[in-house]
Amino acid sequence: MTRATLDKSAGVEGNLKTKKHVYFFGGGVAEGSASLKGLLGGKGANLHEMTKLGLPVPPGFTISTEVCAYYYQHSRNYPVRLKDEVALALRKLEAAMAAKFGDNQIPLLVSVRSGARASMPGMMDTILNLGLNDATVRALATQAKDERFVWDSYRRFIAMYGEIVLGIEAGLFEQALEDKKTQAGIKADSEIDASSLQALVKEYKALIETKTGKVFPQNLMEQLWGAIGAVFGSWMNARAKSYRELHGIPESWGTAVNIQAMVFGNWGSTSATGVAFTRDPGTGEKKFFGEFLVNAQGEDVVAGTRTPQPVNEESKNEANKNQPTLKELFPKSYEELVGIAVRLEKRFKDMQDIEFTIQKGRLFILQCRNGKRTARAALKIVVDMVKERLIDQKIAISRLKPQELERLLHPVLDPQAKRDVVGRGLAASPGAASGQVVFDPETAERWVADKKTKVILVRVETSPEDIRGMHASEGILTARGGMTSHAAVVARGMGKCCVAGCEKLGVSYERKEMTLGGRVFKEGDAITLDGSTGEVMAGIVPTIRAGESKDLIELMTWADQRRRLGVRANADTPADARVARQFGAEGIGLCRTEHMFFNGERIKSVRKMILAESREEREGALAEIFPMQKQDFAGILREMQGFPVTIRLLDPPLHEFLPHEKAEQEELARELGVSLEKVKQRVEGLKEFNPMLGFRGGRLGVVYPEIYIMQTRAIVEAACELAKAKVEVLPEIMIPLIGEARELKMIREYVQAECERVLKNRGVRVNYKIGTMIEVPRAALTADEIAAEAEFFSFGTNDLTQMGLGLSRDDANRFLPAYVEKKIYPADPFVSIDEAGVGKLIQMAVYLGRKTKTKLKIGICGEHGGDPQSVIFCHKAGLDYVSASPYRVPVARLAAAQAARVVKVKSC
Amino acid sequence: MTRATLDKSAGVEGNLKTKKHVYFFGGGVAEGSASLKGLLGGKGANLHEMTKLGLPVPPGFTISTEVCAYYYQHSRNYPVRLKDEVALALRKLEAAMAAKFGDNQIPLLVSVRSGARASMPGMMDTILNLGLNDATVRALATQAKDERFVWDSYRRFIAMYGEIVLGIEAGLFEQALEDKKTQAGIKADSEIDASSLQALVKEYKALIETKTGKVFPQNLMEQLWGAIGAVFGSWMNARAKSYRELHGIPESWGTAVNIQAMVFGNWGSTSATGVAFTRDPGTGEKKFFGEFLVNAQGEDVVAGTRTPQPVNEESKNEANKNQPTLKELFPKSYEELVGIAVRLEKRFKDMQDIEFTIQKGRLFILQCRNGKRTARAALKIVVDMVKERLIDQKIAISRLKPQELERLLHPVLDPQAKRDVVGRGLAASPGAASGQVVFDPETAERWVADKKTKVILVRVETSPEDIRGMHASEGILTARGGMTSHAAVVARGMGKCCVAGCEKLGVSYERKEMTLGGRVFKEGDAITLDGSTGEVMAGIVPTIRAGESKDLIELMTWADQRRRLGVRANADTPADARVARQFGAEGIGLCRTEHMFFNGERIKSVRKMILAESREEREGALAEIFPMQKQDFAGILREMQGFPVTIRLLDPPLHEFLPHEKAEQEELARELGVSLEKVKQRVEGLKEFNPMLGFRGGRLGVVYPEIYIMQTRAIVEAACELAKAKVEVLPEIMIPLIGEARELKMIREYVQAECERVLKNRGVRVNYKIGTMIEVPRAALTADEIAAEAEFFSFGTNDLTQMGLGLSRDDANRFLPAYVEKKIYPADPFVSIDEAGVGKLIQMAVYLGRKTKTKLKIGICGEHGGDPQSVIFCHKAGLDYVSASPYRVPVARLAAAQAARVVKVKSC
Repeated sequence: MTRATLDKSAGVEGNLKTKKHVYFFGGGVAEGSASLKGLLGGKGANLHEMTKLGLPVPPGFTISTEVCAYYYQHSRNYPVRLKDEVALALRKLEAAMAAKFGDNQIPLLVSVRSGARASMPGMMDTILNLGLNDATVRALATQAKDERFVWDSYRRFIAMYGEIVLGIEAGLFEQALEDKKTQAGIKADSEIDASSLQALVKEYKALIETKTGKVFPQNLMEQLWGAIGAVFGSWMNARAKSYRELHGIPESWGTAVNIQAMVFGNWGSTSATGVAFTRDPGTGEKKFFGEFLVNAQGEDVVAGTRTPQPVNEESKNEANKNQPTLKELFPKSYEELVGIAVRLEKRFKDMQDIEFTIQKGRLFILQCRNGKRTARAALKIVVDMVKERLIDQKIAISRLKPQELERLLHPVLDPQAKRDVVGRGLAASPGAASGQVVFDPETAERWVADKKTKVILVRVETSPEDIRGMHASEGILTARGGMTSHAAVVARGMGKCCVAGCEKLGVSYERKEMTLGGRVFKEGDAITLDGSTGEVMAGIVPTIRAGESKDLIELMTWADQRRRLGVRANADTPADARVARQFGAEGIGLCRTEHMFFNGERIKSVRKMILAESREEREGALAEIFPMQKQDFAGILREMQGFPVTIRLLDPPLHEFLPHEKAEQEELARELGVSLEKVKQRVEGLKEFNPMLGFRGGRLGVVYPEIYIMQTRAIVEAACELAKAKVEVLPEIMIPLIGEARELKMIREYVQAECERVLKNRGVRVNYKIGTMIEVPRAALTADEIAAEAEFFSFGTNDLTQMGLGLSRDDANRFLPAYVEKKIYPADPFVSIDEAGVGKLIQMAVYLGRKTKTKLKIGICGEHGGDPQSVIFCHKAGLDYVSASPYRVPVARLAAAQAARVVKVKSC
Repeated sequence: MTRATLDKSAGVEGNLKTKKHVYFFGGGVAEGSASLKGLLGGKGANLHEMTKLGLPVPPGFTISTEVCAYYYQHSRNYPVRLKDEVALALRKLEAAMAAKFGDNQIPLLVSVRSGARASMPGMMDTILNLGLNDATVRALATQAKDERFVWDSYRRFIAMYGEIVLGIEAGLFEQALEDKKTQAGIKADSEIDASSLQALVKEYKALIETKTGKVFPQNLMEQLWGAIGAVFGSWMNARAKSYRELHGIPESWGTAVNIQAMVFGNWGSTSATGVAFTRDPGTGEKKFFGEFLVNAQGEDVVAGTRTPQPVNEESKNEANKNQPTLKELFPKSYEELVGIAVRLEKRFKDMQDIEFTIQKGRLFILQCRNGKRTARAALKIVVDMVKERLIDQKIAISRLKPQELERLLHPVLDPQAKRDVVGRGLAASPGAASGQVVFDPETAERWVADKKTKVILVRVETSPEDIRGMHASEGILTARGGMTSHAAVVARGMGKCCVAGCEKLGVSYERKEMTLGGRVFKEGDAITLDGSTGEVMAGIVPTIRAGESKDLIELMTWADQRRRLGVRANADTPADARVARQFGAEGIGLCRTEHMFFNGERIKSVRKMILAESREEREGALAEIFPMQKQDFAGILREMQGFPVTIRLLDPPLHEFLPHEKAEQEELARELGVSLEKVKQRVEGLKEFNPMLGFRGGRLGVVYPEIYIMQTRAIVEAACELAKAKVEVLPEIMIPLIGEARELKMIREYVQAECERVLKNRGVRVNYKIGTMIEVPRAALTADEIAAEAEFFSFGTNDLTQMGLGLSRDDANRFLPAYVEKKIYPADPFVSIDEAGVGKLIQMAVYLGRKTKTKLKIGICGEHGGDPQSVIFCHKAGLDYVSASPYRVPVARLAAAQAARVVKVKSC
């Protein structure tokens, strides 16, 4: 293909012909800046920015993300001008480094790294030491006067190149290295001598020839373009796809490629490489924090193969407390690094994660980015930064991911509970988790999906391939790796509890067992992790609730000033209601009465009611349940005084209350004085083909009005008694599963009559409301008619999703994952509201409902009420409030504030 | 309440004060006419009309239906002027009859009858002989010179009044009558002498005093107002409500009250009463047809307590063939009656049902109305009347109820089959029916609902209380009653098969058994009825299909010229397809491929496919199924040449194909060479909580593309081979259960690729289409996006109803009847499309779909496609076609023609 035809084939992307593809940085000058993240990727943009700030960044250049897009749109071909641009940039780089690519005196080596717009740690590929071949390795050896360092660099490069560019299994290179160490009778990589490394290079090259049928490329430009292609190719590898999916990163963004002059942390004992944070990523405390390794390169620190040293006293932990710090070993570099950290934080107004290398005593900054942090740290950092006047309240609110807050509020291990501690590792990601031990990510996923069990994933160390399994697990335990190891970083990002680098932990994947503290745990045995202390315990340790932090209270005050949406909680008991209030719920949006039906002795009366053969018998059983229900309601109404409490009348199909095991059925038969046969028959007779769409909700109210009348009486009598005691009560009676206005009318009329009857008898006035759930699609479609019979609507988005999408949540696990994976649905519709479908029903119902009643109060009580994306949707749709589980109330409050800041209510 | 306050309370209905409430007719003059059916009820309006026509109608007056409405809106009070108007009309009536109400010389007697706008035979109440008391009975006796007749009239009046006005159980009066007959040792009512009747009157009066604590009213105005109140009251009785519900008659219509001078068919042997039809109500043949009883009154003929006599030779049947005819006994009256019949048919342009009475040789017409008829008769009558130029084609089309046509096409007993005939009755309503014998309507309803069994209701005679049970039954068998008995009339109206008046039939309700032909049948035993011959057979007799009649073909030609909607059939086999074509289907709207999966040996391959553990294994099993599927499709495509055939890819959840019994599972395990445990596990693992919303339809296509690819290949290869043989094939591949455009896109793409691959290989061009069902609410809501991926839509209204209303059809029988009864849903939404909900989704989908593709082809393939009401909706909604079961194709064709006549397509 000639250049002319190539240009022509580029056709519509013609502007790329004249567009710049390559951006140079170095020597205090850069063609890009931090504002060009979209074009240069996060890593690239920051390298340009740091260069401009005058920081010691090795020079280099960035191939833009546009090239990645072009590459995939054109069957993996590059824009025609790219080659020339790269060549030009390379010449500039040679000039800046006073070295030449392929020079046999002072050869230039480069790193080739991916860099997407959003950070995807470890998800894509990096090649170091590119520029080495059989000739330059000798030149470098002469120049560096350190044979060992040079051969180590060469063998690392060949292995990386072999794996990443040529697709050879990494294990084969590792195996050869291990064999070498075994032969030499040594343990640490750093003990291998130069000649062994040189032999290893030979073996690696032979391995490549055997595996690929070609010799390892000696042509440096071939090396370079192979590496660039591998980086672009890595954008579509399974790990990267999976990471994007989990983090909602669009595929269209693409990655940039950063080609940068190498500096060496593995150049002897005056060299080092490390990672540091401007604040503690675990707690958010304002203290410089980091880890490093002497005489190491690149991924050694984060790969977790050696336990890294602390940069300072503040960074010490159990595992590394006896090791010398960076401050001690490299005091000058340390001071310089601390100074750079301060400048970077000022520039980027966020906590920074900095990769640095010390080459023969000279500090270089290889990367900076906003640091990953625990939820706790994230909260503390934004609140502190507002106080430091680095950011304002609005930015503080927008910067926190609402779902992270939830983790702060979840239970921690009960300090009173006995802990059978069997070992201790790094407290790598806070929180507590119990579960069954599994040793591979597939089992983790499968057990959670199939057995509905909770698992703890135990690994020697984790790698990006383990992502899905980590996601499925409650917590992660590793034998190796530090606070910045893969396991630790990813777990913090996911908000999973993680204990890392538990050095005494023995793991056998083959026998599926682990040993710790002299004990053996087989697959399936229970353990508990405390991610805040690093303790590993045998068995399940009970948990208690954590209190709210002062930081959270402060942030929530700022959020509450900004949000328009009300936030309520779903709570069925006075205890839940209390938690909900503590978390700032402004009412209860869903109190499920059926949970009360199961409590203790009353289930007997409930079963008696269900097995009743006449209205009289049924009313007899209901009379037994009545005082207990009344007490339940009194408890909740008292707890929520001054706030509305939406109580849903009985919803589930009656067969859910009946025993299905023979022994239980026999007991029931005995208690009720009927035959086992009769109990069996009735249980059998109540079974349904599709219970979700069966005899439940308002249908119970149509066929057995006496049930709803009893519940209504219990609510209103409880309310009256509290009202008499000067407790302000605002009960809202909610009728579930309504599909047609006449159905609601019939039930509403008798419920209202019962309310009025009780109020008249008691001689009290109570402000009560009667409303309905909108959870059947038809209710949304006919909401104008339904609204005539309702004082409020509450969207039951769980069922609305099940019916609207024809998707049984209990059965969807066999195909829904495939749907999310194939991007048929952008997200699990049970997690975030399906806006195009269910959302449309909600918008219609809001529009139609308010057409009939302008001031109709509308909320949502499905589990989506605590999902930030869905909260934003609810804000847009003009709802009055969302209702979430108590622990998600702060999540919803923050999401509502974020929604108010960025989105207007959409008038339908 | 004073008159002033009464007037005031009338308030909003003020116009009623000045409005006329009472309309007089008599002596050739009438204040009303046939056009005032709404005001005067059907019976009243026709009495007025007949009076105007100069027919011998006894004079009387009608209290309008407006009074009924007022009565129920005003706590059962009357408009204030009513009393005066009634008194005035009564005076006019006295003048016309030259008799006086309560006169002790020539006392006036009247009948008081209900009369609603639509005929509700036997549903409401009638009181005869009103005006008799202890004084007038003697006056009448003197005047009539027939003691027996007079006392018989009085005892009948007291019994009717006691039952209807005073609410005493009718059985008590009957018992007293039976006792009298037993004492006297006689059998027939007509044999009881005058003194016994006089004694009976005493007993009846004593019975009333005992039961009500009051004496039987001697005040005639009290009697009259009591009767008027009872008639209005009867509008709301259970029978009337139930009848209205079954026939869709609005409650708001109300009934009129007709008060008419009595004439007596029970005045000795020169008197008679009867019912006649202007054409044969069973066959539609143009012949005068009827039954009568000598010396009988009012309801005796229709009550079925005596087997009536034929009016002429043409009316004779097995039961009455030896009795003298009306023509023989009353030749003058017969000729007069025939002449009247001709005039009435000309006037009303429809077959008439005429009630007549002969009093001492003089003919009176008491009522005429459009006669009930069998479907067969209805068809013949309209086609004949068009030929007679009595009506035009448009009226012919509009007059037939489309659903009635179905009955004409349903199977009849196989003439080759052995018939174990055990008895014979009247062929009261045609058709054939087999089922289990039940003896009470409640059992009929329960068995059908719970056991999903077919039943035959066997009764001595039926009464309006039996309506629901009759509706539930396949057929009705009675021991007593003629062709115009309750059982016969109602069964014909319902299109149920009925054998009535089977005199040799012995029925014991107590022992729940019947005897016939020396055989005993217990409840649950099977019998078969032939409603066209009157035969009763033991066991189940197989049926075959009836051909189309010439009349039907003619009517369908008229209908097809007028309809816009296409009509297709749902058919899964070549045989079904052939029937569909015979019935005029213009294509197949739904061919379900899963039914083919069950056929014979192939179920084994299907099970192998389901139990496969890899795509390869699955493809192996699919390869076995492929040739069979191809053959199936070839058969159907050939049968439907020149017409489109919509083939739905696999839809049901896979577990439906697996055996659930242990023995079957063992066999499967053996066949597949796997362990029983494995089969069990897989069956267990595939079970779902809500299979309707589970892993089925397009979801199978997303997870196992190989299944749909195999089906596509089978369709297109079959099509190619036929196309090569010059058969015009138009396959339409339909993808089920789609909820999202991307889901459809993914499947459509590989289906299309497979189509193109086969066509290219075969080197043939076949016009095929790929489309989707719209059956998930979300598909309707996002139809604009879905349309981009579909060449046609077909509404699956069964599932759209289940999901849209949150209503599992399999589970709804426990509450849906209550919903229809309480009028929450106006009709069963699985029978007629729920227009407000599901209809709205359909309208949205049509609008959105055509917004994307103006010419998008849209049909419906749910069972609603054969429901006339739903067909009208589909016409309005702008669909291109409906698809119905083969037997309902003519129904749909007629309904479509009716829709085109009355409704415009609604532009959305």
